[in-house]
Amino acid sequence: MPQEAQRNRRFVLASRPDGAPVPADFRLEVGEAPAAGPGQLLLRTVFLSLDPYMRGRMSDAPSYAAPVVLDQVMVGGTVCRVQVSNHPGFAPGDWVLAYSGWQDYAVSDGRGLLRLDGPHPPSWSLGVLGMPGFTATMGLLEIGAPRAGETVVVAAATGAVGSVVGQLARIKGCRAVGVAGGPEKCRYALDELGFDACLDHRAPGLAQRLAGACPDGIDVYYENVGGAVFDAVLPLLNPRARVPVCGLIAHYNDRDLPPGPDRTPLLLSTLLKRRIRMQGFIIFDDFGPRFGEFRQMMGGWLAEGAIRYREDLVEGLERAPEAFIGMLRGRNSGKLVVRVGPD
Amino acid sequence: MPQEAQRNRRFVLASRPDGAPVPADFRLEVGEAPAAGPGQLLLRTVFLSLDPYMRGRMSDAPSYAAPVVLDQVMVGGTVCRVQVSNHPGFAPGDWVLAYSGWQDYAVSDGRGLLRLDGPHPPSWSLGVLGMPGFTATMGLLEIGAPRAGETVVVAAATGAVGSVVGQLARIKGCRAVGVAGGPEKCRYALDELGFDACLDHRAPGLAQRLAGACPDGIDVYYENVGGAVFDAVLPLLNPRARVPVCGLIAHYNDRDLPPGPDRTPLLLSTLLKRRIRMQGFIIFDDFGPRFGEFRQMMGGWLAEGAIRYREDLVEGLERAPEAFIGMLRGRNSGKLVVRVGPD
Repeated sequence: MPQEAQRNRRFVLASRPDGAPVPADFRLEVGEAPAAGPGQLLLRTVFLSLDPYMRGRMSDAPSYAAPVVLDQVMVGGTVCRVQVSNHPGFAPGDWVLAYSGWQDYAVSDGRGLLRLDGPHPPSWSLGVLGMPGFTATMGLLEIGAPRAGETVVVAAATGAVGSVVGQLARIKGCRAVGVAGGPEKCRYALDELGFDACLDHRAPGLAQRLAGACPDGIDVYYENVGGAVFDAVLPLLNPRARVPVCGLIAHYNDRDLPPGPDRTPLLLSTLLKRRIRMQGFIIFDDFGPRFGEFRQMMGGWLAEGAIRYREDLVEGLERAPEAFIGMLRGRNSGKLVVRVGPD
Repeated sequence: MPQEAQRNRRFVLASRPDGAPVPADFRLEVGEAPAAGPGQLLLRTVFLSLDPYMRGRMSDAPSYAAPVVLDQVMVGGTVCRVQVSNHPGFAPGDWVLAYSGWQDYAVSDGRGLLRLDGPHPPSWSLGVLGMPGFTATMGLLEIGAPRAGETVVVAAATGAVGSVVGQLARIKGCRAVGVAGGPEKCRYALDELGFDACLDHRAPGLAQRLAGACPDGIDVYYENVGGAVFDAVLPLLNPRARVPVCGLIAHYNDRDLPPGPDRTPLLLSTLLKRRIRMQGFIIFDDFGPRFGEFRQMMGGWLAEGAIRYREDLVEGLERAPEAFIGMLRGRNSGKLVVRVGPD
């Protein structure tokens, strides 16, 4: 394929959100695609992953990763095809897992790319076989360390992470209790994902219903939301419970801390009295070298049908901001992926 | 020695405290000492340990251990001499570590007693060679897992637990930063215990001074107080910091939670962004089988002079309530022990 300049659409960060992001925080720019120099590749984006952590990158509050710079392209995991290769390790047409952001084209020197050649659809490497599935698996198995017969609770139970946590908990012989937004998601969690129970956090009385669904208390709470779910979970945690903390989507748009009283001492005294271990983790920082091992394990579970996976596929890069904003409100069902271009 | 009834003084729990305990929450009763039956021992208390956890036992809020029953003797660790023995494993005159409470005499069937015959004063088995030293050692080394060059912070730095944490941190090649109440305690921590820095939490600007004393941030925060110290520590915790939680003395007398905002989300997001591990523990539940191993290690450090130890010895069982109430206000300096009877 001749290397000639192509039209590149990209979303840049136009402004830092104050509370929930709005469409005007993103700006669509159209320019020329970059050219691959010596040793480089030109990647064409086919799928873009939208994930909650991106809300953090839009802010310049201190975090574990640098913020996106204003007027620069929004970051994000992508599945691309190699369009031009001046690199001995890749050929035109190869599928690769990349981190090229919200745009049509990007140049890469090959570092950090993973060639995709397994039996599963390439886009699954943004979900169940990628960062969210890896996050679910390592957080649950390595930090949560569930034992057969224990009770595991996870919120956003039908999301990219929660759906894997629940199914893995079942594989490990645990009682899996999910929390999700609305009856339809709860039905999906029960009927398709095999959760033992799933509670709608939009209906009243979550704390009482959660207590009813966890008659033996909670041994592992996989924390990915915070907020009201955490409040309902805290009194139910058993002695020696484990709480991996991978996300707090309920708080990402918060402008201020919630009103008082300050319940920090309650949390600390619960940790103390019940000898609870709570641990935050950042998947690639903490477990990066085990990504290959994870993909093999997960590939096996998928092949056996032990883990099911659902994508919420949005057509067209131009819809990415709206889809991302909706995700922060729980509007997606399954892993949110944007189709940016044709296969 | 003939077994005849002797006068037994004991403090019972007269009422459950509302906030800080007051002298009227304890009632001194005088009766006859019990008699040792077949297979039993009569113990005479020489030393009684006073420890912050006892405040929890005075309440009937759910906790890790059952509360003291109203009108029953206050619980507590003791160092006793065997006065009468109908047990083949003990002889009159033996020194033993027991858990016989705030009283002169108690009967035991021998279970749970540890005979004391080492080179150190028997009362040290209530402090540096007992529960507080064990708590400091396991919490720091097993949960805190400090590495040479890291910074370890501990509050109540001259107390029974904090003083051991700081000295062990130094033994492990760490920078040890203490927090204590008042200039005299801080001087003791620096001059006698070898802390690299010690901050008076009663003086203004603790957060700024702590930041100055921890130029490389905090890698291990050994939590035994909560409150303002925890607030000052939180922003300074490094990525992958460890926070063993063994006590929250600043909150034990709280009637209500502190005013808002509710900073729970701030704590959770700090754990997440910095991949922090926070873990509550109850020393004998979590590490009980290693008590013998600990006593050997600590005995070695004491013999070498690597660990120093100071007791705050109060004369007379009748002064126990007042001494206990004062300890919750930080009035002791060193491990608080009551001499109940002669050697």
